[in-house]
This record gives sequence, structure tokens and C-alpha cells, in this order.
Amino acid sequence: MKIALAQINFHIGNFEQNKAKILEAIHKSEESGADLVVFSELAITGYPPRDFLEFEDFINQSKKAVEEIASACTKISAIVGMPSVNPNPNGKRLYNSAAFLSNGKIQKIIHKTLLPNYDIFDEYRYFEPNTVFELIELKGKKIALTICEDIWNVEANPLYTVNPMEQLALLNPDFMVNIAASPFNFEQAQRRFRVLEHNTRKYKMPLFYVNHVGAQTELLFDGGSMIMNSKSEIVDVLNYFKEDLRLYDLNDVEITKGKSSLETKTKAALIHDALVMGIKNYFQKLGFSKAILGLSGGIDSAVTAALAAEALGPENVYNILLPSPFSTEHSLKDAKDLALNLNMPFDIISISHAYDSFNEALHPFFKGLPFNVAEENLQARIRGVILMALSNKFGHILLNTSNKSEAAVGYGTLYGDMNGGLSVLGDVYKTDVFELARYINREREIIPENIIIKPPSAELRPDQKDSDSLPEYDILDRVLYLYIEKRKGPAEIIAEGFDEQLVRRILRLVNINEYKRYQTPPILRVSDKAFGMGRRMPIVAKYLS
Amino acid sequence: MKIALAQINFHIGNFEQNKAKILEAIHKSEESGADLVVFSELAITGYPPRDFLEFEDFINQSKKAVEEIASACTKISAIVGMPSVNPNPNGKRLYNSAAFLSNGKIQKIIHKTLLPNYDIFDEYRYFEPNTVFELIELKGKKIALTICEDIWNVEANPLYTVNPMEQLALLNPDFMVNIAASPFNFEQAQRRFRVLEHNTRKYKMPLFYVNHVGAQTELLFDGGSMIMNSKSEIVDVLNYFKEDLRLYDLNDVEITKGKSSLETKTKAALIHDALVMGIKNYFQKLGFSKAILGLSGGIDSAVTAALAAEALGPENVYNILLPSPFSTEHSLKDAKDLALNLNMPFDIISISHAYDSFNEALHPFFKGLPFNVAEENLQARIRGVILMALSNKFGHILLNTSNKSEAAVGYGTLYGDMNGGLSVLGDVYKTDVFELARYINREREIIPENIIIKPPSAELRPDQKDSDSLPEYDILDRVLYLYIEKRKGPAEIIAEGFDEQLVRRILRLVNINEYKRYQTPPILRVSDKAFGMGRRMPIVAKYLS
Repeated sequence: MKIALAQINFHIGNFEQNKAKILEAIHKSEESGADLVVFSELAITGYPPRDFLEFEDFINQSKKAVEEIASACTKISAIVGMPSVNPNPNGKRLYNSAAFLSNGKIQKIIHKTLLPNYDIFDEYRYFEPNTVFELIELKGKKIALTICEDIWNVEANPLYTVNPMEQLALLNPDFMVNIAASPFNFEQAQRRFRVLEHNTRKYKMPLFYVNHVGAQTELLFDGGSMIMNSKSEIVDVLNYFKEDLRLYDLNDVEITKGKSSLETKTKAALIHDALVMGIKNYFQKLGFSKAILGLSGGIDSAVTAALAAEALGPENVYNILLPSPFSTEHSLKDAKDLALNLNMPFDIISISHAYDSFNEALHPFFKGLPFNVAEENLQARIRGVILMALSNKFGHILLNTSNKSEAAVGYGTLYGDMNGGLSVLGDVYKTDVFELARYINREREIIPENIIIKPPSAELRPDQKDSDSLPEYDILDRVLYLYIEKRKGPAEIIAEGFDEQLVRRILRLVNINEYKRYQTPPILRVSDKAFGMGRRMPIVAKYLS
Repeated sequence: MKIALAQINFHIGNFEQNKAKILEAIHKSEESGADLVVFSELAITGYPPRDFLEFEDFINQSKKAVEEIASACTKISAIVGMPSVNPNPNGKRLYNSAAFLSNGKIQKIIHKTLLPNYDIFDEYRYFEPNTVFELIELKGKKIALTICEDIWNVEANPLYTVNPMEQLALLNPDFMVNIAASPFNFEQAQRRFRVLEHNTRKYKMPLFYVNHVGAQTELLFDGGSMIMNSKSEIVDVLNYFKEDLRLYDLNDVEITKGKSSLETKTKAALIHDALVMGIKNYFQKLGFSKAILGLSGGIDSAVTAALAAEALGPENVYNILLPSPFSTEHSLKDAKDLALNLNMPFDIISISHAYDSFNEALHPFFKGLPFNVAEENLQARIRGVILMALSNKFGHILLNTSNKSEAAVGYGTLYGDMNGGLSVLGDVYKTDVFELARYINREREIIPENIIIKPPSAELRPDQKDSDSLPEYDILDRVLYLYIEKRKGPAEIIAEGFDEQLVRRILRLVNINEYKRYQTPPILRVSDKAFGMGRRMPIVAKYLS
């Protein structure tokens, strides 16, 4: 039996395009002699369709598209992820399903049992869990078909009280197929491999795993679909961050001597590739081609610009240098050097006149009160106004350049430098931004060395440095990681050797700035705990604050 | 047996304050001779605690606080909502529980069975559903204790496949207690009553229902706790929108001739009361007292200012009139009249100079291109900058004045008039804003009549009216209601008699403006489908767009 894996970048709700991509892969697979072609979870809708699932019209369109695809499956069979309606009056209205298409029809619909409902996942919001276990059959082979999370209940403290693969194993399948939408983070490929390995070792049969690829706003799906044999060896891994279609013979899979470990790139390289795909898909899928950003001469905007140049082409990244009276000469030079290094268009627009006119308008009210955060934010907001005016006039999307450390402690101006359609670095700690810069410079100096080595500064008052008001980033980032990624409380973090007052101050800053993060653009997610849909905090609260 | 119901406004994560409020109600109830005092769902943490529940430290603090409360329950018993740890290694780590405190200890912990996971609810994200059914006993009485959703599985197409109250009824309880955190919308009190009525009719026993009261950022809990007798009559209803503590004798409850229907205020009155509480609690719980807003002379900012004046006191609502070259004389006068009517402080700051300075800075780039949305947004953003500068200097919170109709179709400027710490009217359609204005004027003209009767205009270009670019609000709002509240697709809406092109245009506007709503402030929720945490849409998608 020959099985094709189709790893495709779907567009949420774009039924015409998704259907066309699926049909194309079916035709290609058929031409290559495949008996079965497998697509990822909720392929027809794109993942995650979110509350579109509450529209009957949306569900009907999904069904219609899959029926049309089924009618093309006369010589070949296919497995396509789709939402399906729960016929039982009790329980949620939908299932998260995999349709088995054969002989021109939907022959069987298998439902997902384990519905992830943590971090960025909301599947229990829409779907009823499956309780009936059956195999699908094709040309004398019995297939245990599961959907993503169904094979993930393998930890010491399992999240679920049932194990669907254990149920299916009782029915003596010949091999496993899992269709997934497993989003990227820089540790996810290894974690995913361990889960697949656990299943092949436990059930001693081959596993065909098809993952979604492509960015869906903040969620980055890295692909890396995988075939493992019954000896728990990796037979093949599909592309990361790119569409792919490959064909396997079941017999060959079993006699192939595979690998027992998965090779992955470095953390910086993975984050780099993920962010480039994230920017690219965001623009493509929205139908935009040009980005604008404020280039300050600092490392965050430099890295953002370099990533955007790679994603969109340097000619499509419009850099605006917006000096204020507190900007330094070297910042302006560093920013220009970067734009020239990458051959990106840039312009310089001084904010001094606008700054003066606001100060003049506010003078009767500010009445000689000392310069403070109001004037600092004023500069950032004037820059925001200019960037948005250009964006509105010429149809660029503004890229946000804030990093995760800043976003965490609220070191940024709402409606100023926190503006943008997309936050590129909002899930990258400052210390990792430096790593990314080094990675971008791996072959030649793209980001001027001076940008990497000078002390970070917002340049909103004379001789300002980030370290005037924030702890050094290497300490800050470690505390933030324990609090945000690891959900450690103050006592646990202090026990790791950090200063008590410092820890309490950092945690308080994180919590009291929830209101700012509520209004930030979507953040490309590269860690396993990003700000945004995966971290849901009360704004008005009194805890560690 | 005497039972007290304690309807309290908790502060999320403020264990000290929540504990103190609970202890105070316990002491008062004990002094009044109560045998049992009942508090609302997750009383100790406040509802919803959201991802704070993922912190072990937070769970430990909850437990410690409830144990301290238990030690005060020597003569009286109490029921207190709290999260508790699931001792089973399989399944989610927590239960949503009700602790029964008696004889100085936590005697029993009852868990919630039905976990709402739709709209604004995310309970399956944190909690394992209960599967064991038992009663609690006090002084020879057997109590069926359930938590909120547990008694809501009463519809024709139930969301859940189990019914906990049916299970408990088999054990022959004497009466029911339900502890809840059921958020307000303008139809919710009646809906809630029908659910309680259904349960009392079905199980033929009294029901003591304690709801949460107070605002938790966007969620407004209206209280309205209720006692029904076994004849399914309303014996008493606690305050709406205010804390309350009342005592009942079980025997009296049964012999009281109650009411068979619930009286509620008009829609406008309910929304008014809810929004006033929402503003008040937002400021109180964040520790702020003063609001700032831009008063345009239009109805949205007028209604927002009037509501804020009622919530915070007029002296704490600072109104800034920000005329541009396109502002009309009557708008300025209308705005001033409103401020004078309510005796609110106001100032006038012209945006003309700042507008000129931006136009000058942008001139080399705009190169004589025609005036368009870029210049319109520029004005709104300059206003945003001035309001935020004052807010930053003097510690006001900026109130957002956008209404739901505008927010829906993206008729507003991101980083301009969409700014604010809290959106007061973001869940109120424009047509309902007029109703609110009439309600505010029910005793005397607070909002100048001219503001109510003139055609809505953003005044961002000469002689502009909203109806130049938007359908008339009475049509727009009805289409939006069908799409947003009722999740109807285009065919269904058109079938109700609306023009096809118009419907498609409106739905498209809603969907392509998802990116703007992603960055808006939290919106006080008064309908059963508000923008924000209860409506989760993809930003990058292609559906009806």
C-alpha cells in the first residue's frame, strides 16, 4: 500500500483555496500511484477556525467542500480533517473529525477524543469528545486513525482519563495515522518526536503523522510531518516551515533502517525560520505586500527589519527613522547603516516640531511640572502617529518591534511603540533577540555590530539606559521565564537564588501591566507560553501586585 | 433551620480582602442566628481568576484563606466557593469546588460537574468535571449543593450528557443550594429565573441561589440572588448590582406565598445600572478615582461622560474638548452644555497646531495626494495623544467612547478614538445608545437635546455624516445583531428581508476589522455576545470577507 502525506498551508475559512490545494495534492498523489493521501487536522477550514465554527453557514460550507473533494476520490482514498455535526441532541453541536473519502464518497467519519483546552487551545468550546472507537479499512489494511491530541495522553500526570489509542489497539490495526495541527515553539519538534516515539514503541506499528504548516496570525505551524516504523525509528521527516507532499510504500517503511533521534536546528535558527514564515504568511493571507516600521537604531527594530526583509523582500520594508531631541547621532547612523546593508528604503522624519506643538498645547495644563513619563510617552506616540499616517496613506502594515521582556514589564508606550498590525518579537526575550541578531549576521554583518554591543536605551530622555529603570536583561529574563513559562510563584523563584525584592518588583510589574498587553497586536508565538490567546489573565485583580 | 445568603463583590486574587468580607458576613449571620451562610462560586478567589489558577502559589493561598475561614465556623456553618486540587493523577489538576465549613473545619468539598466552556467561559481550561454525587448534611437536613452551570442543563438541546441535579435528587435531599457566578446581560435575569423555576418545578424543593455581584473588568455580575420555594414561587430576590446579606428560615420559605414571575427593569435601565457599576468597580479595584475623556459633542461621548459622572462623581470626570478645523460650533457648544449640566470639569485644547505640524512633517511624503482616511485618522490620533499625555501626567484613566456598531464595522481610528483603559459603550449598539441617553434624561435634561437629535458625525472632514459611509443605524444594528448575537450567515440574514449587497458589505466590514477589535480596551459586557473574551475570531482569515 502506498500512502502520501500532504503537508499544506491552509487559509482559515478560504474554502475555495483550501479545496483547490487538497484536490491538487490528490491528483498528484494519484498520478504517483498512491492508494491513500492524508491531510492535516481541520484541513478544510484551516486551523484554528475559532468562533467561525459557531456559524451553521461555515459548517455547511466545510461539508460541501469535503463532499466535492470526495467525488474526486474515485481511484484514490483520502483522509481530510473537517468539523462535523453531532447527531446526538445531547452534548456540544460539533465533532472535530477526520473524513475518510473513498469510492467518490465520505465513507466514514472518525471523531477526536481528546480535546485540548489549555494554552492556545479552545477545542472544548466547540467540540464534543468522541466515545466510540473503530478502525478504518482500506485494501485489506486496518488503520487506527486519530487526531492530534488523541495520541498525546502519554505523560506521568495525564490530562485526560481516557486513552483513545489504547482502545483502538484492541482492534488490531496494521498501522497508525495521526492528523495534526500542532503549533511550533522552539522545543516542540523534539517534544512531538518523543510523543510519536512513545506511541510507536508502545503499539509496535508504523505511524504516519501529518501536521499543518503555515502561520495563522500568531500561531506558527512548523510542519515536520513524520513517518516512523514499528521499531520506533524515524523513516522520514517532511519539510519544516514549507509545504510538502511525499509518498511512502508501507512495506518499504517497515524495512527501512531509520533514525532513532531527531535532528533539529539551534534555538535561534528555529525562531528565525518561524518568525520569517509568520511575517510572510500574515502579509500574504491578508493580501498585503509592504511593511513599515520605525527604525530606532536599537536592536529590536533592527532585528524586526532584517526578518521582514527576508520574509517580504528588502524593497518591501519601508524604514522610518524618527529622531527626537533625545536621539543620539550614533543611533541615526546605525539605523541608516542597517537600511543600507539590506538595501531597504528608508526616510528620516524628525518629530521635533510635532513634539514642540504638543508641548505648547499642553503647556497651560502641565504648568511647569517636571518632565516625566508623560513627555517620554509623547515622543513614542508622535512616532506612532507618523507611522500610522504613512501606513494609512500608502497601505503598508506597521510592524511592531517590542520584545517579550519589555512587553512583560510594561516598558513600552501604549499607542506609541506598542502599535502595529503584528508583533514580530513579542515572544522573544531581549537576551534571545541578541542571539537572533547574531544568527542573522552568521554569514555577513547585516545588523551593524554597534547595534548589538551598545547598551539598550529607549532614548526618550538625555543619557537614558534601559538599565536605569529595569534590572539587567540576563537577570530579568530568567525571572520572567520562571514566572511566565514555568508559572512559578515568588517563593519558588526566590528559592532559585534571586533577590526577593527584585523578584517581587518584577512580578508586580508583569501583573500591573496586563492592561497594556490586552491592547497589543497579535504576537508571533515561538515559546510554549506567549502573551496573547495562550495566556489569559485578569486585568483588574490584586495578586502579586 | 436558618440560612443566610451572602451576595458579595469580590476582588480577584485579593485573598486578604475577600477573606475579610467573608468573615464579616459569617459574624453578622451568626449574630442573626443563622445556621448556615452561603457564598458564591469561587468566592475566595473572585470570579473568573483565569490563568492565575495555573499558579500553585495561587491555589495554596486560596486553600489557606478558606482554612482560616473554616476555623471561624465553630457555631455556624458556611459554604464557600474555592478551587481545589484533584487528588487523582489522571485528568485536570483542579476542581471548581464548594467547601462546606462546619465545626471549625472544611468538612466536605463538593465539585462542579458541568463546566461552561463557551462565550466568556473557559472552565474546562482549568477544571476536571465531577463524577461523584453526594449530599451534605446539616442539623438533620440533607442539602443538594451544586455550582452554577450544574443546574443549567435544562434546554431542549442540552450542552451536556449528564445532569448532576438528577443524580442528587435520587439521594432525597431536603432542599437545593446553588452557588453561582452568572454574569449580567440585559436578558440574563429572566433567563436565570426560568432556569431556577425549571429546577424547583422538577425537583419540588426549595432552592437557595447565591450569585456573585460586582464588575470584574469586562464581566458584570448583577447579583439578584434568589430564594424559591417548592411550589416554584419566588420568595425573595436580593439586590441587583449591590452587595447584600439576608437571612431566611427554611420553614418560613416553604409557607411564604411567593411570586410566580420576576419583575425586571427596562433594557435601558438595566444597561445603565450595569455600566455604572462596571465603571465604578473598574476604578475602585484598580485604585483610581479620576477619569478623562474626549467630549466631542456627539452622543457616544456624552452618554459615556454622564455614566462616568454617576459612577465616579462629576468632579472626577475630566472632559477635554478637542476641536479640529472640521469641528462645528454647535458641537463645541453641545459638549460645553453637557459638562455644565453635570458640573464636570472641562477644558478646550485645539488640535489645529499639532495637525498642521504633522501635515508639514508628512508633506514631502504625501506629495499632494488627496485628503483621505489618513488625514481623518490623523485628527483622531492627535486627540488620542493629548488625552493620554494628560492621563499620564495626572493619573486619570482614559475612558473609551466607541459604541458597538462602530466597533463592529471598524468605524473608528486605532490609536485614536479607540484608545482607553475601558470601553463603556462597546457592547451597546448605536440605537441603544440613544435609548440610554433618553433614560439618563428621564428626570431632567442632562444630555442636551441637540446631541440626541442631530445626525451622527465624526466631524473629520467638512459636512461629514456617519450615513455617508455607513448604512442608517437602525438597519445596520439589526443586521449586526443577527450576525453577532445570533450567528446567522448571509443567506439567513438576507432571508429576513435585508438587501443582499448591504448584508454582504456589513458582514465583510465586521470580519476585515477583526484586527482593530483585537487591540481595543476591555468592553463592559451587557449583551449575550460582546466583543472581547466571549467572541474569538481569527484575524487572518477569508470568510465572508
